[in-house]
Amino acid sequence: MGKIVTFGEIMLRLAPNGYYRFVQAQELGATYGGGEANVAVSLANYGMDAAFVTKLPKHDIGQAAVNSLRQFGVDTSYITRGGNRVGIYFLEKGASQRPSKVIYDRAGSAIATASSEDFDWSTIFEGAEWFHFTGITPALGDNVAAICLEACKAAKAKGVTISCDLNYRKNLWSKEKAGQVMAGLMEYVDVCIANEADADDVFGIKAENTDVTGGKLSHEGYKEVAKKLADRFGFSKVTITLRGSISANDNNWAAMLYDGNDYYFSKNYLVHIVDRVGGGDSFGAGLIYACVNKYAPQDALEFAVAASCLKHSIEGDFNQVSVDEVKKLAGGDGSGRVQR
Amino acid sequence: MGKIVTFGEIMLRLAPNGYYRFVQAQELGATYGGGEANVAVSLANYGMDAAFVTKLPKHDIGQAAVNSLRQFGVDTSYITRGGNRVGIYFLEKGASQRPSKVIYDRAGSAIATASSEDFDWSTIFEGAEWFHFTGITPALGDNVAAICLEACKAAKAKGVTISCDLNYRKNLWSKEKAGQVMAGLMEYVDVCIANEADADDVFGIKAENTDVTGGKLSHEGYKEVAKKLADRFGFSKVTITLRGSISANDNNWAAMLYDGNDYYFSKNYLVHIVDRVGGGDSFGAGLIYACVNKYAPQDALEFAVAASCLKHSIEGDFNQVSVDEVKKLAGGDGSGRVQR
Amino acid sequence: MGKIVTFGEIMLRLAPNGYYRFVQAQELGATYGGGEANVAVSLANYGMDAAFVTKLPKHDIGQAAVNSLRQFGVDTSYITRGGNRVGIYFLEKGASQRPSKVIYDRAGSAIATASSEDFDWSTIFEGAEWFHFTGITPALGDNVAAICLEACKAAKAKGVTISCDLNYRKNLWSKEKAGQVMAGLMEYVDVCIANEADADDVFGIKAENTDVTGGKLSHEGYKEVAKKLADRFGFSKVTITLRGSISANDNNWAAMLYDGNDYYFSKNYLVHIVDRVGGGDSFGAGLIYACVNKYAPQDALEFAVAASCLKHSIEGDFNQVSVDEVKKLAGGDGSGRVQR
Amino acid sequence: MGKIVTFGEIMLRLAPNGYYRFVQAQELGATYGGGEANVAVSLANYGMDAAFVTKLPKHDIGQAAVNSLRQFGVDTSYITRGGNRVGIYFLEKGASQRPSKVIYDRAGSAIATASSEDFDWSTIFEGAEWFHFTGITPALGDNVAAICLEACKAAKAKGVTISCDLNYRKNLWSKEKAGQVMAGLMEYVDVCIANEADADDVFGIKAENTDVTGGKLSHEGYKEVAKKLADRFGFSKVTITLRGSISANDNNWAAMLYDGNDYYFSKNYLVHIVDRVGGGDSFGAGLIYACVNKYAPQDALEFAVAASCLKHSIEGDFNQVSVDEVKKLAGGDGSGRVQR
Amino acid sequence: MGKIVTFGEIMLRLAPNGYYRFVQAQELGATYGGGEANVAVSLANYGMDAAFVTKLPKHDIGQAAVNSLRQFGVDTSYITRGGNRVGIYFLEKGASQRPSKVIYDRAGSAIATASSEDFDWSTIFEGAEWFHFTGITPALGDNVAAICLEACKAAKAKGVTISCDLNYRKNLWSKEKAGQVMAGLMEYVDVCIANEADADDVFGIKAENTDVTGGKLSHEGYKEVAKKLADRFGFSKVTITLRGSISANDNNWAAMLYDGNDYYFSKNYLVHIVDRVGGGDSFGAGLIYACVNKYAPQDALEFAVAASCLKHSIEGDFNQVSVDEVKKLAGGDGSGRVQR
Amino acid sequence: MGKIVTFGEIMLRLAPNGYYRFVQAQELGATYGGGEANVAVSLANYGMDAAFVTKLPKHDIGQAAVNSLRQFGVDTSYITRGGNRVGIYFLEKGASQRPSKVIYDRAGSAIATASSEDFDWSTIFEGAEWFHFTGITPALGDNVAAICLEACKAAKAKGVTISCDLNYRKNLWSKEKAGQVMAGLMEYVDVCIANEADADDVFGIKAENTDVTGGKLSHEGYKEVAKKLADRFGFSKVTITLRGSISANDNNWAAMLYDGNDYYFSKNYLVHIVDRVGGGDSFGAGLIYACVNKYAPQDALEFAVAASCLKHSIEGDFNQVSVDEVKKLAGGDGSGRVQR
Repeated sequence: MGKIVTFGEIMLRLAPNGYYRFVQAQELGATYGGGEANVAVSLANYGMDAAFVTKLPKHDIGQAAVNSLRQFGVDTSYITRGGNRVGIYFLEKGASQRPSKVIYDRAGSAIATASSEDFDWSTIFEGAEWFHFTGITPALGDNVAAICLEACKAAKAKGVTISCDLNYRKNLWSKEKAGQVMAGLMEYVDVCIANEADADDVFGIKAENTDVTGGKLSHEGYKEVAKKLADRFGFSKVTITLRGSISANDNNWAAMLYDGNDYYFSKNYLVHIVDRVGGGDSFGAGLIYACVNKYAPQDALEFAVAASCLKHSIEGDFNQVSVDEVKKLAGGDGSGRVQR
Repeated sequence: MGKIVTFGEIMLRLAPNGYYRFVQAQELGATYGGGEANVAVSLANYGMDAAFVTKLPKHDIGQAAVNSLRQFGVDTSYITRGGNRVGIYFLEKGASQRPSKVIYDRAGSAIATASSEDFDWSTIFEGAEWFHFTGITPALGDNVAAICLEACKAAKAKGVTISCDLNYRKNLWSKEKAGQVMAGLMEYVDVCIANEADADDVFGIKAENTDVTGGKLSHEGYKEVAKKLADRFGFSKVTITLRGSISANDNNWAAMLYDGNDYYFSKNYLVHIVDRVGGGDSFGAGLIYACVNKYAPQDALEFAVAASCLKHSIEGDFNQVSVDEVKKLAGGDGSGRVQR
Repeated sequence: MGKIVTFGEIMLRLAPNGYYRFVQAQELGATYGGGEANVAVSLANYGMDAAFVTKLPKHDIGQAAVNSLRQFGVDTSYITRGGNRVGIYFLEKGASQRPSKVIYDRAGSAIATASSEDFDWSTIFEGAEWFHFTGITPALGDNVAAICLEACKAAKAKGVTISCDLNYRKNLWSKEKAGQVMAGLMEYVDVCIANEADADDVFGIKAENTDVTGGKLSHEGYKEVAKKLADRFGFSKVTITLRGSISANDNNWAAMLYDGNDYYFSKNYLVHIVDRVGGGDSFGAGLIYACVNKYAPQDALEFAVAASCLKHSIEGDFNQVSVDEVKKLAGGDGSGRVQR
Repeated sequence: MGKIVTFGEIMLRLAPNGYYRFVQAQELGATYGGGEANVAVSLANYGMDAAFVTKLPKHDIGQAAVNSLRQFGVDTSYITRGGNRVGIYFLEKGASQRPSKVIYDRAGSAIATASSEDFDWSTIFEGAEWFHFTGITPALGDNVAAICLEACKAAKAKGVTISCDLNYRKNLWSKEKAGQVMAGLMEYVDVCIANEADADDVFGIKAENTDVTGGKLSHEGYKEVAKKLADRFGFSKVTITLRGSISANDNNWAAMLYDGNDYYFSKNYLVHIVDRVGGGDSFGAGLIYACVNKYAPQDALEFAVAASCLKHSIEGDFNQVSVDEVKKLAGGDGSGRVQR
Repeated sequence: MGKIVTFGEIMLRLAPNGYYRFVQAQELGATYGGGEANVAVSLANYGMDAAFVTKLPKHDIGQAAVNSLRQFGVDTSYITRGGNRVGIYFLEKGASQRPSKVIYDRAGSAIATASSEDFDWSTIFEGAEWFHFTGITPALGDNVAAICLEACKAAKAKGVTISCDLNYRKNLWSKEKAGQVMAGLMEYVDVCIANEADADDVFGIKAENTDVTGGKLSHEGYKEVAKKLADRFGFSKVTITLRGSISANDNNWAAMLYDGNDYYFSKNYLVHIVDRVGGGDSFGAGLIYACVNKYAPQDALEFAVAASCLKHSIEGDFNQVSVDEVKKLAGGDGSGRVQR
Repeated sequence: MGKIVTFGEIMLRLAPNGYYRFVQAQELGATYGGGEANVAVSLANYGMDAAFVTKLPKHDIGQAAVNSLRQFGVDTSYITRGGNRVGIYFLEKGASQRPSKVIYDRAGSAIATASSEDFDWSTIFEGAEWFHFTGITPALGDNVAAICLEACKAAKAKGVTISCDLNYRKNLWSKEKAGQVMAGLMEYVDVCIANEADADDVFGIKAENTDVTGGKLSHEGYKEVAKKLADRFGFSKVTITLRGSISANDNNWAAMLYDGNDYYFSKNYLVHIVDRVGGGDSFGAGLIYACVNKYAPQDALEFAVAASCLKHSIEGDFNQVSVDEVKKLAGGDGSGRVQR
């Protein structure tokens, strides 16, 4: 199998321990994460040849970000070193009725101030089979959106499959700007990944009978969403994750897949959350793994949902699970009995 | 709006991390808390001008207690410095069927050995709008009960509204003693706050069809309790929190309010507990905030219940939430979705 | 009451904090535990005279294992010092659908390489009333199985009651080997303890209509299992714990007891798990306590189940609860209300 | 005595525990600090009425910065809330021959992007006696240099004494730019504070026979430096701290003071370092305290040096010592015997 | 060899991690210690049969204190359970010129409120060879002084050797009171242990040419002190530890012994301090070990000094070293080379 | 430049935090290290292409060892996966007169039970320039010694330079066995690295006038040692590190180099130790770096000594320093001034 390339920002994630609020914390857990980096680590953990492309400063914080990826076997040789800072996000874990809270401090990061010359896509895509990015990357700035477009073109030129997770972030850009920029990129995308709110936020495509905040999702309504997305942009596959948020501790988790012909729905998992950040990314990684390994649609969906179900039980952005663990859960064993 | 004054003891709280038992702990989390201090911090977090009155030793542990209040903006300028020790309570967090456990080591604390000359109530209540204390304060000793009475009289003389949380503590005094002393103070109190057991413990006023230990509470029965309290002491408002304890991890949480005319019941919340100590105090603070800001009865009750619902998700005695967070929950959004 | 002797291995338990996976951990909690050691500590916590017999190296890690037992009052004077290493097990705590994971690194431990001369059973059983071991001890090697047999004979000769927890460990021996060796030991055993899978694994005695992995247990089916065990080996009592695993966080927990005449079933507890390792051992310790104190069968069973229910709320292998705490839960108070 | 006002930036300080390097850290200690904030906290710890002026975002990280100041009694009521981020600095503690390392990530902070309208100096200086800033503040940008100039003018207009610590930071501006901007501000300054390198870096005034890197300082040479500074800018007092760096663990620490007439040299302390960041600021705070309290020159110098000697034994930017502790050391007791 | 009995208070020791000051600490290390308990643990670590006598509450904090002793093999069977609280001391570790700081919170502890009936000395001294107490025990109150006298009489009646460490604590009693009470006890004491200041504080016997605070001790002057003590009270041995405090990190450490005939001086050690609390106690334990094992005077002194030198490198009150480790150092190997 | 290959064991290192002794530790820091792995990481940190060859189990602890190497850029692609366990060493950090203590638990590790088929040296050495191993590797067993010999032969066949650090470990083999096996390997070795004791331990070649335990080393005596080693085995270079141990905290550190013609002595550093494990390995890595980069003998020696001097300031086995940092120190700047 060929190399899988992802492109985006990796941030320093600073989080109080346990359930402490920001104003209580004297210690912050320091890990690294970001949509596309999370996908790369997850794929490397599945034994894939995964490369993550970004720009990071030459200083030790930049180096620590590189090391966090290398540790799990991600190919970091295409990372450009330069720029001034590593983007940061502060994460406060929610509990019960109190939601998790994210404060972004990512403006001016190395990747957000990168330019076209920083990346040689033709070299990067040599031997590549798949390219993945999310809606966060073009949202970092017009320069990054332009780089993203160049990457898509280069990938397409080499016959590389392209997936995109819409991943709308309201603090990075408006819905209007997002819709306009993303539409331009979608023409290169084969596989579209979205959560229960993205299609509405980015393209104004809304599920009927659904109240995302209230945690009530109409699975039927999402068929229509998937179809509209596929019809508009010609995606070969559309997948939508369906999170039903009961509380900060407990969520329902499922997904659907539309392959242009049929609609597939996964099992639903009731997850007791350890850390839900990166849940969507772990779904994307599971889906890419399944696609590259030619799983049938229902199997691919179940693999991706089981993978991301497990992510909710793992600290940090990165999904630290193996193919065997995912398969065991997808195969029906979610009893959590001790493995000796 | 005027100043809100609370009076009582702030203790050093020593708690093993996570779910470790006392006999397993080599480290103890060191924070500070106590009924009336908790109310003051919560009000300061809502942007109120809140002052906490107590006596604390001049040494560094006393100073650390002062700092813990100042940190959140509480006015500590009326705290008298002197005496020998800071009261301590040891807290072991329960889980599942194992209850949380509190060991008090508060005898001989600076406030418990204070005398009338330590406090100049006339100065303290200048510009004040509200005075709050709980049943713990007079229980600290006859001297403190006398000081409390002086405070009530001084407050009343200045037209300050007085609230009292009955807060019965069986290890501090007998039900008989409590009933007698508290009755003398109630004549000055406008707003009475109680939990599902207090009215019975202190004044022998019991709800019918209720099994507090079993977690089964009859809401109807508490109407009668509230009415009897109001009738006996002439309270303008009586509120009763209704905790249905399913396990050390999961509780039902609601409250009622009686304003002499009508009975109001709040929404019920199923809370997954991070730390339930200070839950009642956070209700009191919410109620005071709502009263001072002239909320209608149902709104005041919902604000207080939502505020205290959130407290259960927060480590330490102090309720670290903002007015916006409380309003969001009271307004119906308890899904715990990540706030980015 | 006489001394209670247990014999087996105590290991160094190395576990990442919280829910971190092995590959994420830079710190490992270091405690000690093992089936029979856990029983001894639990009994010492109940005020019993409990002695744990094993072999441990003379170095500081061996000493730390001894200290961990002494700390809770276990008699360690029969522990032979010598050999090269302390057995180790690595424990990763599971959450939600992700199971806990144990990696054993116990080969070559001091006890696994012990010989008959290391233990003077005649001295050890002086004044003893009860002897307990589990199926793990003979599984450590033929030499240890032989020592175990000597212990059983010496115990029997002194009229000491013997209990055995079948405790099958597939990584230590095959089902065939286990069945053969254990059968030889069972002839000395009075009280047999098993979990929902042991009887099948060791002796091929299987409950009907039961899916252990799926968490569906037929209580009726276990009557048959208990009876078959009692009939085959002449046990005076057979107890079977019945764990219904909903997820790594939530389990149903109950047990049955067969005394040759009647079948007793305990209450069922829905437990929210802090640490489930040692759950079975805490049941065994509760049962032994109840037997030695001559509880009636249903009371003995309820005590043992309540004791082990509480264990699930406690970090580490050792059950850190008192007789009063167990009785309070067995008596019906599982509401988890704060004890002040 | 009047209020003491300081103005500048307070940053989030992120530091690995102990001697871990950045690339090894999974946890970062999160405290707050910055030259002028450090001075304000130190003065508040001496019982002074100290106010710190800055701009901080409205979000929780900004609030935590405010709380860190309030905790120690600093008046934070003049802090303007707004802007996007809190400046950050990463600190890695050195040991032996390995130096401590600072990585700044402060561009774009709220204070660096502040404008004149954010501060009402006339109100701020009401009742003030002293104004202090350091060379870092004008280095944050031309806008901040302009605000600083406004502050100086407003202070002067009210007869407030002004002190400035030259504090040259080469990563914020060039020596040329620094020299030019600082010269403009010096005309308002009464008391100049510098370290062994600042006068050279900012104004090209260099001590003879001195090798700062090699830790060899010529005390005589610094007399000339002080005199030149005083002569050029008309300072009433010039103080220069004299750090002789033996290693990252051990430093010599002393200072001199020139009051236009005489040169005073302090005792020298050999300090074994816990945390040397903020050492210069603690000297400044000690000097201001001594001046406001009208100490004689030698006494003022000894107080300031003893205060800053103690700072080296304290974790974090803030000097957590009392007047009594400083006086005890200045009085000659540096034996470190336990105080019971 | 016979049992060694020590009698006194064991306190909960609460200490910030590393060099944090009290006002900075959110976590406190929780260990247990006290003069006589420290001696008992040290002796148990040398393989001696050591029993510690005190009174401790029945609650979990009292139990944790018992466990802390049992863990290291101390016989806790003579500890009376009852009373209300465990005495506490807060410890802040000093560094460089900043001294360590102790805040006592021990009034009202179980042992301080004990009465004669709590201890059956006749049983306790069965099989005993040595009895040890320090000047802290009688300082806890007249009741405890009386119990201490009863213990001395009972010990003497059984021919048990008695040692006393003068251990003057100014916050517990005045020099006058100490001198008077201690004189009454000294008549039973065989071996007197003192530090460089005790003889002066308690009995007004002062070394010439010595400045304890300045760290300058005249060894000659202490000969006179020892002789006067021996002459006045008829001690068979007097030992005086000689701490020369250079800073909170570095001390000189030596001792002298007078056996009525000759004066012996030990080697001097320059110690780099990890934790100096319990240093004197570890000297006492070393001396008792050496006496019980019939070491020659110089050897006994060197053992005791080496033992206590090592204590300075160990966290907590208890000296965690073996006889072999002490002998190795006393024998001259203090190079600190790694032992593999 | 070509690849640098090292071969040996990487162990799980378990160490109490700070200066806690083994019997006090409830937490163990978990890192990975071993002589040759340490060299590989250090070289990777210098930007070299470094590969580490070993055998590690397939389970998660084995994976964590792999990750610890990958994190710093070491090529782990030649590591064979299999076997049962990861070797462990327990490390207790010494202080002052108390030495650090190592307890090995490495028997039966995957590499110790490896066989010739596990490694394809011909492939491994493709493109290699240097091969490094230490005396620990052949000491793991005759099988590993044989593999080591095969590696040497394969390396020699490809013209790869070979270095060996004698690294005698008395708990792994006797001096006789070591001398015999090592002599057979030395014939392939070009560069010999030893510490102040190795040549004596392994080959009976002893420095005159030297007392290693006492920390007194005769530099002259080591000239003779180096010459004898070079003469006997035909080494092109012999280097000897010269550690003068003052205490567990303070060491003198220097080295010599003999190139067959001249004797070179480095500067001496007085190091204040953070963690001295891996000090020798960091010297080896520095030397290899300098040789591969064709440094002149004195420069190579100074680089290696400065590199290893810095290692003593860094936690863990791995030397986390850059070429720039080493050069700065070798160039004379050891003042430890903060780098901003």
